[in-house]
Amino acid sequence: LQEEDTNLAAGRFIGVGVGPGDPELLTLKAVRTLASADVVIAPRTEKRGDSIALSIAKPHMNTGVEILELVFPMVYHPGELSDAWEANRSIIEARLKAGQTVVFLTLGDPMFYSTYIYVFELLKNSGYTIETIPGVTAFCAIASHHGVPIVEGDDVLSVVPATIRAEKLERILAVSDRLVLMKVSRNFSDLSQQLQRHGFAENALMVSKCGHPEEMVHEDIMKVKPEDVTYLSTILARKSKTSSAASA
Amino acid sequence: LQEEDTNLAAGRFIGVGVGPGDPELLTLKAVRTLASADVVIAPRTEKRGDSIALSIAKPHMNTGVEILELVFPMVYHPGELSDAWEANRSIIEARLKAGQTVVFLTLGDPMFYSTYIYVFELLKNSGYTIETIPGVTAFCAIASHHGVPIVEGDDVLSVVPATIRAEKLERILAVSDRLVLMKVSRNFSDLSQQLQRHGFAENALMVSKCGHPEEMVHEDIMKVKPEDVTYLSTILARKSKTSSAASA
Repeated sequence: LQEEDTNLAAGRFIGVGVGPGDPELLTLKAVRTLASADVVIAPRTEKRGDSIALSIAKPHMNTGVEILELVFPMVYHPGELSDAWEANRSIIEARLKAGQTVVFLTLGDPMFYSTYIYVFELLKNSGYTIETIPGVTAFCAIASHHGVPIVEGDDVLSVVPATIRAEKLERILAVSDRLVLMKVSRNFSDLSQQLQRHGFAENALMVSKCGHPEEMVHEDIMKVKPEDVTYLSTILARKSKTSSAASA
Repeated sequence: LQEEDTNLAAGRFIGVGVGPGDPELLTLKAVRTLASADVVIAPRTEKRGDSIALSIAKPHMNTGVEILELVFPMVYHPGELSDAWEANRSIIEARLKAGQTVVFLTLGDPMFYSTYIYVFELLKNSGYTIETIPGVTAFCAIASHHGVPIVEGDDVLSVVPATIRAEKLERILAVSDRLVLMKVSRNFSDLSQQLQRHGFAENALMVSKCGHPEEMVHEDIMKVKPEDVTYLSTILARKSKTSSAASA
C-alpha cells in the first residue's frame, strides 16, 4: 500500500508546447522535459497523417520512451465523455498510477486553442502533479518570419477563429485595431469582403504552413481566389487609419 | 571599396525574443543566435534598474561580446525622430557597417507590443540583413503557470492595454469571450467594476511579476484594493455564460 502511495505522488503529467513548427523554436524547458519523459503522447484529431509535434519532439526524447499516438475527437463534452475520451483517460491514468512522467505534446502553446486544455481539465483533480510548459504561438512565428508587427502602442488585438458567425465578426472588426484571424478556409470571398469593408484588407498578410517548404503567402488578400485557399490559413491584419475613423 | 561592400553584406541585425522571464523559456534558436552575437543591445525606457532581458541572455553570450544598454524613449514619431532615437540608430548602423552581428533583446515576443517594432521599422530599409526570432509571450506563461486556459473552441480573444478609453473598452468587452488585459494599474476600481458588469469578474486571474519571487496573484479581482495594485499587472478572464447572453 505504501508503495502505491509513493507511486501516486510520483506520477507526473506535463503538457509541453513545442512551438509553431520550426524545431529550433522549442524552449530549453521543453527540451529538458522531453528528456525526462517515460511516456510521450502525440494527440491527433484523426487517424491518418504524421504528427508534426512528434517529429519536433523526437530528437530530444530518450530511446526507451513509450510513444502513444492517441486520437482525441474534436468534440468534447465534460458531462458525457465519448468512448474515445474515456479510453484515453484510462491509458493516461494507468501510466500516472505506475509513477511515470507522461508528456502531452501540443503544437504552439498548450493553453491557446488546443486539445490539451480539455485533457488538462479532465486530469486536474486527479491528484497527480500537473505542469504546463508554454510555447511560441503560430501567429507570433508568422509575424517574426514575415516582419509584420502583431500589435503596438495602445492598439487592441482580437484573435478570432474564422468559423464564427458573420454578425459576430462584424462587431469585432468594428472595435479592433489589429486582427489575427485563424482557421481561414471556407467562405473566403465573403470573409475578404467583410475585412475590406472594415479597412483590414489594405494591410493584411495571409499565410498557411508558415516556415514549411509548402508555405503559401499572400500579401494582397483581395487578389486571392477562393479556390486557392486549400489549407487552413492565418491572416494578420491592421485597420487602416481612415477606415478606423469611419467604423469606430 | 570592395571590402566595405562585403562588410555591408555581412552586417546582420537580429531581434531576439527572450521569453517572459524564466531563463528556461528561451528557445534553442535564441540561444544559438546569442552565441553568434558581436553586439547585444538591451533596450530600456528609462536609465535606472537592471535589464531582465539581459540577465536572461547573458549566460548564452560570448565573453568578448559588446553589451549596449540603450535608452529608447517610449514616444516614437517616424517623421521626427528624437535625438535619443537618432543617436541609437547611429550606434547600431556603425556596428552593422563594420560587418557585425547585432542582437536586440526583447522580453516576451519581439512583434508584440515592444520597442523592437519601432527599431525594426527604422532599420528595415537600411540594406542590412534583418531577422526576428519569436518568443513566448507573458500571457502564455501566466496561463500555463497558473493552469488557466487563454482561449478555446470558437471563442474570440481580445488583448487590450488597460490604458485605452473606458468607452472603447466597453465595446470590446461586449463582443469578446476571453480577455487578456495588459498594463493594469491606475483606475483599478473603475476597471474592475466595468469587468464585473460584462461578466468578466467571476473567472479572472490577476498576476504581476509572474514566476518571480515577488509574484502577486489575485484570484478574486473584486477583492483587490486599488492601493494593492502597485506594479503593472495582467488579467486573464473569460466571460461567464449568463452574462455573455445578456450583453451579446
